[in-house]
Amino acid sequence: MKPYVVKLGGSVITDKKKPFSVRRQNLNRLARELSKSKRPLVIVHGGGSFGHPLASKYKISGGYREERQLMGFALTHRAMEQLNAEVVGAMRSAGVPAVAVQTSACAVVKNGNILTLEKRPIKKLLDLGLVPVLYGDTVPDLQKGMGILSGDQLAARLAKDIGASRIIFGVDVDGVYTSDPRKNRGAEILKNITQKDWNQLSFSGDSRIKDVTGGMKNKVGELLKLAKSGIESEIANAAKPGTIERLVNGERGLGTIIGGRK
Amino acid sequence: MKPYVVKLGGSVITDKKKPFSVRRQNLNRLARELSKSKRPLVIVHGGGSFGHPLASKYKISGGYREERQLMGFALTHRAMEQLNAEVVGAMRSAGVPAVAVQTSACAVVKNGNILTLEKRPIKKLLDLGLVPVLYGDTVPDLQKGMGILSGDQLAARLAKDIGASRIIFGVDVDGVYTSDPRKNRGAEILKNITQKDWNQLSFSGDSRIKDVTGGMKNKVGELLKLAKSGIESEIANAAKPGTIERLVNGERGLGTIIGGRK
Repeated sequence: MKPYVVKLGGSVITDKKKPFSVRRQNLNRLARELSKSKRPLVIVHGGGSFGHPLASKYKISGGYREERQLMGFALTHRAMEQLNAEVVGAMRSAGVPAVAVQTSACAVVKNGNILTLEKRPIKKLLDLGLVPVLYGDTVPDLQKGMGILSGDQLAARLAKDIGASRIIFGVDVDGVYTSDPRKNRGAEILKNITQKDWNQLSFSGDSRIKDVTGGMKNKVGELLKLAKSGIESEIANAAKPGTIERLVNGERGLGTIIGGRK
Repeated sequence: MKPYVVKLGGSVITDKKKPFSVRRQNLNRLARELSKSKRPLVIVHGGGSFGHPLASKYKISGGYREERQLMGFALTHRAMEQLNAEVVGAMRSAGVPAVAVQTSACAVVKNGNILTLEKRPIKKLLDLGLVPVLYGDTVPDLQKGMGILSGDQLAARLAKDIGASRIIFGVDVDGVYTSDPRKNRGAEILKNITQKDWNQLSFSGDSRIKDVTGGMKNKVGELLKLAKSGIESEIANAAKPGTIERLVNGERGLGTIIGGRK
């Protein structure tokens, strides 16, 4: 059975308003839901309140400019390791033989993009029945010195490289909306997005897209690229109990499907 | 300036008799000594009382045979991450921008030997002025499913791949002895070992070599292979204050030199 890649958003597993805070109830529940999967999984998680404040303080994503960024890089990576240990630990407690895989040790990044990804250890872990857990990370960058590799970009690349049949993005809203549902009561959920839809919306200057948060826009962009390789994605609400469990066991259409059959 | 690789033995930084115990005084002192280096460093450490008991309990080095080894693999790797976080943390406290690099994410291993090592992220960290810290680790193995990659083998390969000019093995004795110095008062230290010496000793069935511990024998074997690439090594006492500081700043002959000019 082909693996799924499951991305857990930083805002689902941490409280973005409070540095270094784990949303433990969500995390433990998600670990139990993932443990119900009959299918091999690779997990990727975001940085949430562990990675983002430090990455921003030391301006890691802008590239290397001054010496104080060296300790900043070290501290930001360490924070991501700590969150990763929380995720891996929760999964082990749910009976899943989860193993950390350090993104910045296996991805070669140039100007923010993954040049190559050493996938053989990850594939071998999967073959054995282990569950690799990667994460958005600070990375050495061959062009700009240092940078951030987002969990979103990583998840999309991993899905392609390991031959996943599907990618599930667990976020804290029900899917991709026509505008921010927490600000606009008229926001509608998009059930499907194809490249054609996206082009029409973007090129027409449709207000529906302008309001989509930058983060969501990037996700859809990554996932549409993936759709060209025949890999379907779904962006769904991981904060809603049961959603991830149903998705990893093959259900479709609980959130927004990207690049799928309509 | 070409980098040095420094391997810190598990018995120097942990108490091998007591599971999960850090020899904190040694570790903090070594971190301070390493912080005095004017040269780029890559650090590798062993498993000591973190990795060995679990690896042995779950028979990881024998390869994959039964399902309970999956959780064993996960737990052993996690233990190594914990020790690594102690080493990296001690170095950061000494002012060194040290960054973990997960061995099992960048080394591809087949039947116990490193096939390839993704060195580009490590080299880029070095270029920036960061200090990568790797470790002996549980690894997926393309042939036998899973295994252990020793810090010794890793350090030797790293030295070659990143173009290090020298490798320093910090152990808890003064170097390579003709027999175990803690058991035999007549043990003599070998100041230099070349392949020729080693062949003569091994082939003559010289009793001097029979008593060398398996661990030390493996180290000398790895380092003699390295000597063929023109990289000199020194095995010295990292538990003796000041030794590592002197070595990383270029002194020679404080322990046993392998493959060097006599």
